[in-house]
Amino acid sequence: MSLDGVTLLGLLAGTLTTVAFFPQLLKTWRSKTAADVSLGMLVTFCIGVFLWLVYGILLGAMPIILANVVTLVLAGLILALKLRYGD
Amino acid sequence: MSLDGVTLLGLLAGTLTTVAFFPQLLKTWRSKTAADVSLGMLVTFCIGVFLWLVYGILLGAMPIILANVVTLVLAGLILALKLRYGD
Repeated sequence: MSLDGVTLLGLLAGTLTTVAFFPQLLKTWRSKTAADVSLGMLVTFCIGVFLWLVYGILLGAMPIILANVVTLVLAGLILALKLRYGD
Repeated sequence: MSLDGVTLLGLLAGTLTTVAFFPQLLKTWRSKTAADVSLGMLVTFCIGVFLWLVYGILLGAMPIILANVVTLVLAGLILALKLRYGD
Protein backbone atom coordinates (compact mmCIF):
# COMPACT_ATOMS: atom_id res chain seq x y z
CA MET A 1 0.00 0.00 0.00
CA SER A 2 1.43 3.39 -1.00
CA LEU A 3 1.82 6.26 1.46
CA ASP A 4 -1.22 7.88 -0.16
CA GLY A 5 -3.19 4.70 0.46
CA VAL A 6 -2.19 4.71 4.14
CA THR A 7 -3.14 8.39 4.44
CA LEU A 8 -6.48 7.67 2.78
CA LEU A 9 -7.10 4.84 5.26
CA GLY A 10 -6.25 7.18 8.13
CA LEU A 11 -8.66 9.78 6.75
CA LEU A 12 -11.42 7.17 6.49
CA ALA A 13 -10.71 5.96 10.04
CA GLY A 14 -10.70 9.53 11.31
CA THR A 15 -13.92 10.33 9.46
CA LEU A 16 -15.69 7.37 11.10
CA THR A 17 -14.45 7.95 14.67
CA THR A 18 -15.39 11.62 14.19
CA VAL A 19 -18.84 11.38 12.54
CA ALA A 20 -19.63 8.72 15.17
CA PHE A 21 -20.26 11.54 17.64
CA PHE A 22 -22.91 13.22 15.44
CA PRO A 23 -25.67 10.71 16.30
CA GLN A 24 -24.80 11.02 20.01
CA LEU A 25 -24.85 14.82 19.80
CA LEU A 26 -28.21 14.79 17.96
CA LYS A 27 -29.69 12.24 20.38
CA THR A 28 -28.64 14.22 23.46
CA TRP A 29 -29.72 17.52 21.85
CA ARG A 30 -33.19 16.16 21.05
CA SER A 31 -33.84 14.11 24.19
CA LYS A 32 -32.38 16.77 26.50
CA THR A 33 -31.17 13.97 28.75
CA ALA A 34 -27.77 12.34 29.13
CA ALA A 35 -28.18 10.40 32.35
CA ASP A 36 -26.74 7.19 30.84
CA VAL A 37 -23.73 8.97 29.33
CA SER A 38 -20.71 8.91 31.68
CA LEU A 39 -19.32 12.33 32.64
CA GLY A 40 -15.98 10.69 33.43
CA MET A 41 -15.85 9.28 29.90
CA LEU A 42 -16.54 12.66 28.30
CA VAL A 43 -13.97 14.58 30.37
CA THR A 44 -11.22 11.97 30.00
CA PHE A 45 -11.98 11.52 26.30
CA CYS A 46 -11.81 15.27 25.55
CA ILE A 47 -8.42 15.61 27.27
CA GLY A 48 -7.13 12.55 25.39
CA VAL A 49 -8.37 13.84 22.01
CA PHE A 50 -6.60 17.15 22.69
CA LEU A 51 -3.34 15.27 23.31
CA TRP A 52 -3.87 13.21 20.11
CA LEU A 53 -4.19 16.52 18.28
CA VAL A 54 -0.81 17.70 19.64
CA TYR A 55 0.68 14.28 18.77
CA GLY A 56 -0.61 14.58 15.19
CA ILE A 57 0.82 18.10 14.85
CA LEU A 58 4.24 16.92 16.10
CA LEU A 59 4.18 13.94 13.70
CA GLY A 60 2.83 16.09 10.85
CA ALA A 61 0.16 13.40 10.34
CA MET A 62 -2.69 15.19 8.60
CA PRO A 63 -5.41 12.52 9.19
CA ILE A 64 -4.70 12.55 12.94
CA ILE A 65 -4.84 16.36 13.06
CA LEU A 66 -8.07 16.75 11.06
CA ALA A 67 -9.90 13.93 12.83
CA ASN A 68 -9.04 15.13 16.30
CA VAL A 69 -9.91 18.80 15.71
CA VAL A 70 -13.46 17.85 14.67
CA THR A 71 -13.79 15.12 17.33
CA LEU A 72 -12.75 17.60 20.01
CA VAL A 73 -15.48 20.03 18.92
CA LEU A 74 -18.20 17.33 18.81
CA ALA A 75 -17.20 15.62 22.08
CA GLY A 76 -16.88 19.05 23.69
CA LEU A 77 -20.45 19.89 22.65
CA ILE A 78 -21.74 16.58 24.06
CA LEU A 79 -19.86 17.34 27.30
CA ALA A 80 -21.48 20.79 27.41
CA LEU A 81 -24.95 19.23 26.97
CA LYS A 82 -24.17 16.63 29.66
CA LEU A 83 -23.18 19.41 32.06
CA ARG A 84 -26.34 21.34 31.14
CA TYR A 85 -28.84 18.47 31.43
CA GLY A 86 -26.92 16.50 34.05
CA ASP A 87 -28.62 13.38 35.36
CA MET B 1 10.83 17.21 21.36
CA SER B 2 12.65 13.96 20.61
CA LEU B 3 10.99 11.02 18.86
CA ASP B 4 10.74 9.29 22.23
CA GLY B 5 8.95 12.34 23.62
CA VAL B 6 6.45 12.27 20.76
CA THR B 7 5.86 8.54 21.27
CA LEU B 8 5.36 9.16 25.00
CA LEU B 9 2.80 11.87 24.21
CA GLY B 10 1.00 9.49 21.84
CA LEU B 11 0.97 6.80 24.54
CA LEU B 12 -0.49 9.28 27.06
CA ALA B 13 -3.11 10.41 24.53
CA GLY B 14 -3.97 6.80 23.71
CA THR B 15 -4.17 5.89 27.39
CA LEU B 16 -6.67 8.71 28.04
CA THR B 17 -8.93 8.08 25.01
CA THR B 18 -8.85 4.39 25.97
CA VAL B 19 -9.39 4.50 29.74
CA ALA B 20 -12.17 7.05 29.01
CA PHE B 21 -14.42 4.11 28.11
CA PHE B 22 -13.97 2.36 31.47
CA PRO B 23 -16.34 4.72 33.37
CA GLN B 24 -18.93 4.34 30.57
CA LEU B 25 -18.60 0.55 30.62
CA LEU B 26 -18.90 0.47 34.43
CA LYS B 27 -21.87 2.87 34.40
CA THR B 28 -23.76 0.86 31.77
CA TRP B 29 -22.84 -2.44 33.46
CA ARG B 30 -24.16 -1.24 36.83
CA SER B 31 -27.25 0.68 35.70
CA LYS B 32 -28.23 -1.97 33.12
CA THR B 33 -29.58 0.83 30.93
CA ALA B 34 -28.08 2.60 27.95
CA ALA B 35 -31.09 4.44 26.54
CA ASP B 36 -29.20 7.76 26.27
CA VAL B 37 -26.19 6.18 24.58
CA SER B 38 -26.47 6.32 20.78
CA LEU B 39 -26.32 2.96 18.97
CA GLY B 40 -25.23 4.76 15.79
CA MET B 41 -22.29 6.25 17.69
CA LEU B 42 -21.16 2.89 19.06
CA VAL B 43 -21.36 1.04 15.73
CA THR B 44 -19.66 3.82 13.70
CA PHE B 45 -17.03 4.31 16.41
CA CYS B 46 -16.12 0.61 16.58
CA ILE B 47 -15.67 0.40 12.78
CA GLY B 48 -13.55 3.57 12.86
CA VAL B 49 -11.36 2.32 15.71
CA PHE B 50 -10.76 -0.92 13.78
CA LEU B 51 -9.57 1.12 10.77
CA TRP B 52 -7.31 3.25 13.06
CA LEU B 53 -5.80 -0.03 14.23
CA VAL B 54 -5.00 -1.06 10.64
CA TYR B 55 -3.64 2.45 9.98
CA GLY B 56 -1.36 2.20 13.03
CA ILE B 57 -0.10 -1.23 11.93
CA LEU B 58 0.70 0.08 8.42
CA LEU B 59 2.51 3.12 9.90
CA GLY B 60 4.24 1.00 12.53
CA ALA B 61 3.04 3.54 15.11
CA MET B 62 2.99 1.66 18.39
CA PRO B 63 0.88 4.16 20.40
CA ILE B 64 -1.86 4.06 17.74
CA ILE B 65 -1.84 0.24 17.67
CA LEU B 66 -1.93 -0.25 21.46
CA ALA B 67 -4.56 2.41 22.09
CA ASN B 68 -6.92 1.15 19.40
CA VAL B 69 -6.72 -2.53 20.37
CA VAL B 70 -7.86 -1.74 23.91
CA THR B 71 -10.40 0.90 22.81
CA LEU B 72 -11.92 -1.60 20.37
CA VAL B 73 -12.40 -4.14 23.19
CA LEU B 74 -13.95 -1.58 25.58
CA ALA B 75 -16.20 0.08 22.98
CA GLY B 76 -17.20 -3.38 21.73
CA LEU B 77 -18.25 -4.37 25.25
CA ILE B 78 -20.32 -1.17 25.63
CA LEU B 79 -21.93 -1.92 22.24
CA ALA B 80 -22.74 -5.45 23.43
CA LEU B 81 -24.36 -4.05 26.61
CA LYS B 82 -26.29 -1.49 24.54
CA LEU B 83 -27.62 -4.28 22.30
CA ARG B 84 -28.51 -6.34 25.39
CA TYR B 85 -30.25 -3.61 27.37
CA GLY B 86 -31.47 -1.58 24.38
CA ASP B 87 -33.68 1.41 25.13
